[in-house]
Amino acid sequence: MPDYQAPIEDIRFTLRHIAGLEAIAQLPGYQEASLETCDAILGEAARFAAEVLAPLNRIGDMEGAKLAEGKVRVPAGQAEAYRQFAEAGWNSVAFDPDFGGQGMPWALTTALQEIWNAANMAFSLCPLLTQGAVEALQIHGSDAQKKTYLAPLIAGRWTGTMNLTEPQAGSDLGALKTRAEPKGDHHLLTGQKIFITYGDHEMAENIVHFVLARLPDAPKGSKGISLFIVPKFLVNQDGSLGARNDVKAVALEHKLGIHASPTCVMAYGDEGGAVGYLVGEPNRGLEYMFTMMNNARLAVGVQGLAIAERALQAARAYASERVQGTTPGNDPTARLPIHHHPDIRRSLMALRAWSEATRCLIYFAAGTLDRAKRHPDSADRAGYQALVDLLIPIAKAWSTDRGVAAASLGLQIHGGAGFIEETGVAQFYRDARIAPIYEGTNGIQAIDLLGRKLLRDGGRSARGLIASMTVTLEALKVDSDLEMQVLSTHLEPTLTALSRATEHLLKLGEQEIGSALAGASPYLELFGLVLGGWLLAKSTLAARQSRDPILDEKLAVTQFYMTNQLPQALGLEIAIVSGAESVLKLAPERI
Amino acid sequence: MPDYQAPIEDIRFTLRHIAGLEAIAQLPGYQEASLETCDAILGEAARFAAEVLAPLNRIGDMEGAKLAEGKVRVPAGQAEAYRQFAEAGWNSVAFDPDFGGQGMPWALTTALQEIWNAANMAFSLCPLLTQGAVEALQIHGSDAQKKTYLAPLIAGRWTGTMNLTEPQAGSDLGALKTRAEPKGDHHLLTGQKIFITYGDHEMAENIVHFVLARLPDAPKGSKGISLFIVPKFLVNQDGSLGARNDVKAVALEHKLGIHASPTCVMAYGDEGGAVGYLVGEPNRGLEYMFTMMNNARLAVGVQGLAIAERALQAARAYASERVQGTTPGNDPTARLPIHHHPDIRRSLMALRAWSEATRCLIYFAAGTLDRAKRHPDSADRAGYQALVDLLIPIAKAWSTDRGVAAASLGLQIHGGAGFIEETGVAQFYRDARIAPIYEGTNGIQAIDLLGRKLLRDGGRSARGLIASMTVTLEALKVDSDLEMQVLSTHLEPTLTALSRATEHLLKLGEQEIGSALAGASPYLELFGLVLGGWLLAKSTLAARQSRDPILDEKLAVTQFYMTNQLPQALGLEIAIVSGAESVLKLAPERI
Repeated sequence: MPDYQAPIEDIRFTLRHIAGLEAIAQLPGYQEASLETCDAILGEAARFAAEVLAPLNRIGDMEGAKLAEGKVRVPAGQAEAYRQFAEAGWNSVAFDPDFGGQGMPWALTTALQEIWNAANMAFSLCPLLTQGAVEALQIHGSDAQKKTYLAPLIAGRWTGTMNLTEPQAGSDLGALKTRAEPKGDHHLLTGQKIFITYGDHEMAENIVHFVLARLPDAPKGSKGISLFIVPKFLVNQDGSLGARNDVKAVALEHKLGIHASPTCVMAYGDEGGAVGYLVGEPNRGLEYMFTMMNNARLAVGVQGLAIAERALQAARAYASERVQGTTPGNDPTARLPIHHHPDIRRSLMALRAWSEATRCLIYFAAGTLDRAKRHPDSADRAGYQALVDLLIPIAKAWSTDRGVAAASLGLQIHGGAGFIEETGVAQFYRDARIAPIYEGTNGIQAIDLLGRKLLRDGGRSARGLIASMTVTLEALKVDSDLEMQVLSTHLEPTLTALSRATEHLLKLGEQEIGSALAGASPYLELFGLVLGGWLLAKSTLAARQSRDPILDEKLAVTQFYMTNQLPQALGLEIAIVSGAESVLKLAPERI
Repeated sequence: MPDYQAPIEDIRFTLRHIAGLEAIAQLPGYQEASLETCDAILGEAARFAAEVLAPLNRIGDMEGAKLAEGKVRVPAGQAEAYRQFAEAGWNSVAFDPDFGGQGMPWALTTALQEIWNAANMAFSLCPLLTQGAVEALQIHGSDAQKKTYLAPLIAGRWTGTMNLTEPQAGSDLGALKTRAEPKGDHHLLTGQKIFITYGDHEMAENIVHFVLARLPDAPKGSKGISLFIVPKFLVNQDGSLGARNDVKAVALEHKLGIHASPTCVMAYGDEGGAVGYLVGEPNRGLEYMFTMMNNARLAVGVQGLAIAERALQAARAYASERVQGTTPGNDPTARLPIHHHPDIRRSLMALRAWSEATRCLIYFAAGTLDRAKRHPDSADRAGYQALVDLLIPIAKAWSTDRGVAAASLGLQIHGGAGFIEETGVAQFYRDARIAPIYEGTNGIQAIDLLGRKLLRDGGRSARGLIASMTVTLEALKVDSDLEMQVLSTHLEPTLTALSRATEHLLKLGEQEIGSALAGASPYLELFGLVLGGWLLAKSTLAARQSRDPILDEKLAVTQFYMTNQLPQALGLEIAIVSGAESVLKLAPERI
């Protein structure tokens, strides 16, 4: 199995110069997040990931989670690793100190999530889901609910799940049917949920399910959905665990990847009704779920980045060891490691550029999230919130698409060995494939970007972000260093393309929303590409200004990205502006 | 498991108008290949594929090939399907009538291969390898060898294998170590070969291994490799089977996909030496292998096309049945099949465009191969040979990359269900991934395109092909139909980009071969994209001229391709012209 070493240098650099960690540490409540403290935390996380999580990745893939005699068994070593993870406090980094959390910024937590997911994506889903549960409770739970559930969830003694999907209700949550009947101080839930990540297991003492269901008098569709807490074991007044609730995993899915993560079919109320507690007000469940969506979608975007980094590391190691042939200009009888071959160098550079560009985008979004939560000025908070709302679908979809592409290219560098499971990189190719699907498919992200983020505010946030990018572009143009000026010549036409495509869609969205939607996916990809170029350029400028030893490599990676990856933006503009008609030309049943 | 129905209408159309089947049927020896005969054969193949091969695809994936007690067992039903395949004569379509073949053109055989591979890629590898063995014998075997081996191989009673790779010798075959010691009228071979497709099984009476090995006095490197026939069972004078030879499968690989195809580690000579017979002259084995390479690489390209078509069919069926949400302008409470959503329509159109564009490219190459083999004029034959030599690396690599992308996009259309193995499309994603690797990785294809095909003849073939494309472009420009003229406006800038990139690489290849090689992969992709656009445009012109009912759909698919996929060519030109420097900037060990 390929090893994993967290790329601490680039993580630290990107946290500082792209997320803006020093400024974040000035925000109320984040005073603990000094560079030194964050460095120490990252170093410890890197060690834990390399020593505990990464070695379990392939075993977890081979064994998979199993359901037998009503119990879900995770692969060997995983429960013990989870115990260590929780005991070391890794579950609590981002959360409220009043409930045992460490109150650190999301930017840092996001960097940690990169490390966990790169080491072991299937494992990392468990804390990721718990994070969602904690947020739901923090924002929408009653004081009593917080008192009961928050501390054990933050400590990681209990884990959380999100129960949304039903067989007939996937992207279309309005179609869900699970019912909740009021009974005294609680409700009784009946229904079936599918694709429930870590829906059951014995790694923790209790599992707190967050379940979307309909009250008897609820309006139809998405406005009649309420959110309920359904604990696996009921919780007594004193916090001790009581009776087993009427909820169970009845089947596990046989999946392409993330085998160590149990994906459960959950049955609620087979024996009369699962005890559930309404969160917040009735019929506002979907809205509550959406308040957690930014973090959850960002966390899935992190998985794209994490797989890209892991694929890079594996391919880099293989290419430095595998000896095949020679290169022009060398002794024809010499035999060299394949990383000397120009085509392999191209592939490795592509992996590195994807990895660093997605890291920039994800950390930038996370830093914006911290400002949106904690900036002292409410107008600033609103501005940052609008920006992060715009960034999230791009960060989720563009990064996860890059993750899949990186896993595939990394496998390709291994030649025939890549196709053999023992090599370990085929797992990345399989695991990576879920990330463009869950937490809203990437198609849904593109529709969200276009409809909710671009059109709804009349392009205000998008134009504002493009203006920020233009500032960097102008800085590059007047830079005294010729290499910086050259970067601007590659960035400029793509930024123009993004701007034109934005204006085109704003106009089209008013006139022919169907045609605008036909361009949603290429628009998201165009936006992601240009954001990646912009943030890499910012990184290079920052490295030069701070005389960081990372400069040489950052410049080379940025130059590669600007000339080999970013130019795809030009074709995407054409697809958006000229391609929609042909998307919609054939009637659906004739395609 | 998703069904498969061969897309007979488009296959027939593309055979006729892109491969030029009517003209091929005028070539000496191909008189049997009338449109009517070919249609009848295709119809029968479609039935066999749908009824016999496709239903075994998922069973084969789940069971996989197994090695137990020294025997390789293929999954349930596969041996019987192979027997039916051979008995129906499917193995013999392309081969010499003197040895029981049907003497049909490669264009038709290629269309059949598409059908077999789309139905069941793992199964189809067995006849594919046998095809290579037959060709090797036909071209390089002695009369005695032909007499002994050809008829049973063509009949499919025996199967063939290609034994090239060794652990230290993958892309670099010059590093192989298997030895062949002369002994009387034969040689004794010792060594280990890996990644041997259908290296052992009991579907056929005998297996004829074609093995690359070194004679004792052979020069070092690739000029010291000879080709040997090593039958699993020795063959008596009368053609009956004799003793078991000293060759065996000692392990099967545990692979990402094509599980039903046994990928063997083969041990030669563990008990003193495997009896082998030299093919042709000593030390010319690699050269002989290369003469089969065009067909073999084309056949792998077919697999890319086949998986794209299969992925399209599965996604199309799912999208027409899966009901989720509604579209703008419709009743908001209505629930529609997802193929009404613009983003899904885009995805389905993308699959269809990739499928039809790769079909064009593959069939065009196959038709050119037929002309190169059979054209009565030797200068014409040479011209067609140069053209097919240029086309092959593109057909192999571009089509297989599209196959992987299509399998991934098709899976995505299924949402969460796509990630569940039972749905069946995850298998396509796994199976497809080998095609860019075997028969020369796609990186090797790109190097071949640049070095052997572009630079070696000073650009003559490439310029000739670009000139042919320009003829079509001019025809589009002056067409009386405005829609045809519009196609030209999209094709023209990309054809110019291809031409400029070609001239750039021709110049750079003389000066800095490393920098030229750094652009080899984007050059291949650029060439493939433009070829796809050209051939789709030709198809549309032909459909209009022949008033074919396919016209509406062909035009829509071509318009989609021209505006949504072809424009990527613009970015690729930049990568080739401006991107090489950054590929090579960081020393390999710093990437």
